[in-house]
Amino acid sequence: MPADPSHSSATVAQLGEFELIRTVTTGMPQPRTTLLGPGDDAAVVTAADGRVVATNDVLVEGVHFRLDWSTPEQVGAKAVAVNLADLAAMGAVPTAVLIGLACPADTPAEVVQGLFTGLKKEAAAQGAGIVGGDMVTAPVITISVTALGDMEGRDPVLRSGAQPGDVLAVCGKLGWAAAGLAVLGRGFRSPVAVVGAQRTPEPPYAAGPKAAAYGARSMIDISDGLIADLGHIAAASHVAIDVHSAKVPVAPRLHEVAAALGADALVWALTGGEDHALAATFPYQLPLPSGWTAIGTVTKGAGVTVDGREYDGVHGWEHWK
Amino acid sequence: MPADPSHSSATVAQLGEFELIRTVTTGMPQPRTTLLGPGDDAAVVTAADGRVVATNDVLVEGVHFRLDWSTPEQVGAKAVAVNLADLAAMGAVPTAVLIGLACPADTPAEVVQGLFTGLKKEAAAQGAGIVGGDMVTAPVITISVTALGDMEGRDPVLRSGAQPGDVLAVCGKLGWAAAGLAVLGRGFRSPVAVVGAQRTPEPPYAAGPKAAAYGARSMIDISDGLIADLGHIAAASHVAIDVHSAKVPVAPRLHEVAAALGADALVWALTGGEDHALAATFPYQLPLPSGWTAIGTVTKGAGVTVDGREYDGVHGWEHWK
Repeated sequence: MPADPSHSSATVAQLGEFELIRTVTTGMPQPRTTLLGPGDDAAVVTAADGRVVATNDVLVEGVHFRLDWSTPEQVGAKAVAVNLADLAAMGAVPTAVLIGLACPADTPAEVVQGLFTGLKKEAAAQGAGIVGGDMVTAPVITISVTALGDMEGRDPVLRSGAQPGDVLAVCGKLGWAAAGLAVLGRGFRSPVAVVGAQRTPEPPYAAGPKAAAYGARSMIDISDGLIADLGHIAAASHVAIDVHSAKVPVAPRLHEVAAALGADALVWALTGGEDHALAATFPYQLPLPSGWTAIGTVTKGAGVTVDGREYDGVHGWEHWK
Repeated sequence: MPADPSHSSATVAQLGEFELIRTVTTGMPQPRTTLLGPGDDAAVVTAADGRVVATNDVLVEGVHFRLDWSTPEQVGAKAVAVNLADLAAMGAVPTAVLIGLACPADTPAEVVQGLFTGLKKEAAAQGAGIVGGDMVTAPVITISVTALGDMEGRDPVLRSGAQPGDVLAVCGKLGWAAAGLAVLGRGFRSPVAVVGAQRTPEPPYAAGPKAAAYGARSMIDISDGLIADLGHIAAASHVAIDVHSAKVPVAPRLHEVAAALGADALVWALTGGEDHALAATFPYQLPLPSGWTAIGTVTKGAGVTVDGREYDGVHGWEHWK
């Protein structure tokens, strides 16, 4: 029988680039910020306050995700989430995303359609339009997401703004994705809560702009691990940061999972990336916005310590290392 | 002897992600449009007219470029050029680019540094800053470039704006990259002019905003081939486009190369992509901006014809086909 491109088992090669782009973009709703969506040489997006915040993250199959561990929809949602978390960490709200997708010719079209279902769902949930991108051939599935955002008149919150005396605080999940990775690595598919956290992060998006409005002096999204990412704030701000381990929020569920695996939930919370929680420092006189937990202090000096000592646990993720 | 990370033969794995990012971004000049460059969770770029134009193209080793045919610097320049050409085709001027780079752990660091030399040079030449991006591991070198631009108060020129009666015109090189590909495919490295055109396109960037200011009704950058890309204008505008082949500018140098290879230079000009010339339609009453050549007409109907007939030559490039 001849290949039927409309059949769900068709590959991207059978469907073709233009037909595939048509199927994933047709009927896609666009927010008010999208002045011109996909289909032309470039998109046009509002930039209400005269500035645009922009970030890019690339996810590679076998490095950042596995399609035997996650559905294409979960991978798509994650690809958008990691970028929108970067915008949140500046105090920005998202307006638009662009998707550069590379995949082998024999990729099932339904895998690409699943990826786009996740990409669209996560973007739409945060008010961002998918306004453009590219689709090309490559040996493995590679997803490049660029997210654009708006500062709504606020100043961006930088990594370099921490000052001695600041309170260190976090908002969002810590250690859940690391726990999920440990569970999946042992061949288990549950508990669903931790496995789901590994498959698709749930960054506390709204907490970023709120922290900015509350006067946060520095902020970062935790993608490489709390200690590792606080290291970026300490280095950029020329300060020392001490984490008080007893204050680090570790969910009871994580302690249960850790006990079952013979692991330490606090290590996951201190070193696990991929939850995309937010860490920020606030002037100590100011009240913290709701949802944020104080976990440490900023002083003169350099580097990150835990309970006053250098941390000797596993460190964060660095590519090619 | 232990590996010396400062040695020019170091791999990206020996240098590490953060050190590599440091070496390629340190001392990078930024234009006035860059409010916050690389190094934080996201970049901040001016969007003077309250809108931002955005486009993304992904280049994959072995698909879009070969490092035995091009230097890393040429590949980097090309990756930026194809995106800035998309901005030009909207009538926009570039402000910033973001670079998502994926490559194997054993990629020589000097290859990545060479890529960035080209990326930076082409961006800087057009006034755009490299403001952010990502560096990750992947089986082949994959470069995702997102370019941002400014409309300077003008309306974007869409593919859908062509009207019956319009004059079809082109600006920039036609067929040069295709000639270069044919030469390289035969194992030759010269003539330098055509081989160079394949390695790094020279889009007529300034012609895009100028055409917009002159009242161009529709515009596209020629990346898949003149006939194929005019097909996008015809489809989006619901018009027919006829190309008058005698008016298509074919450089004498291309005729010479074609004669030597037993090829037809007009076919290269009609079907070759990758030169990133611009095609636009203008109201017939208006004078064309300098640098543009009238090559055809827009009428009621559908599809693209050459001298009134369906074109039966080789068609443009579509991924996975």
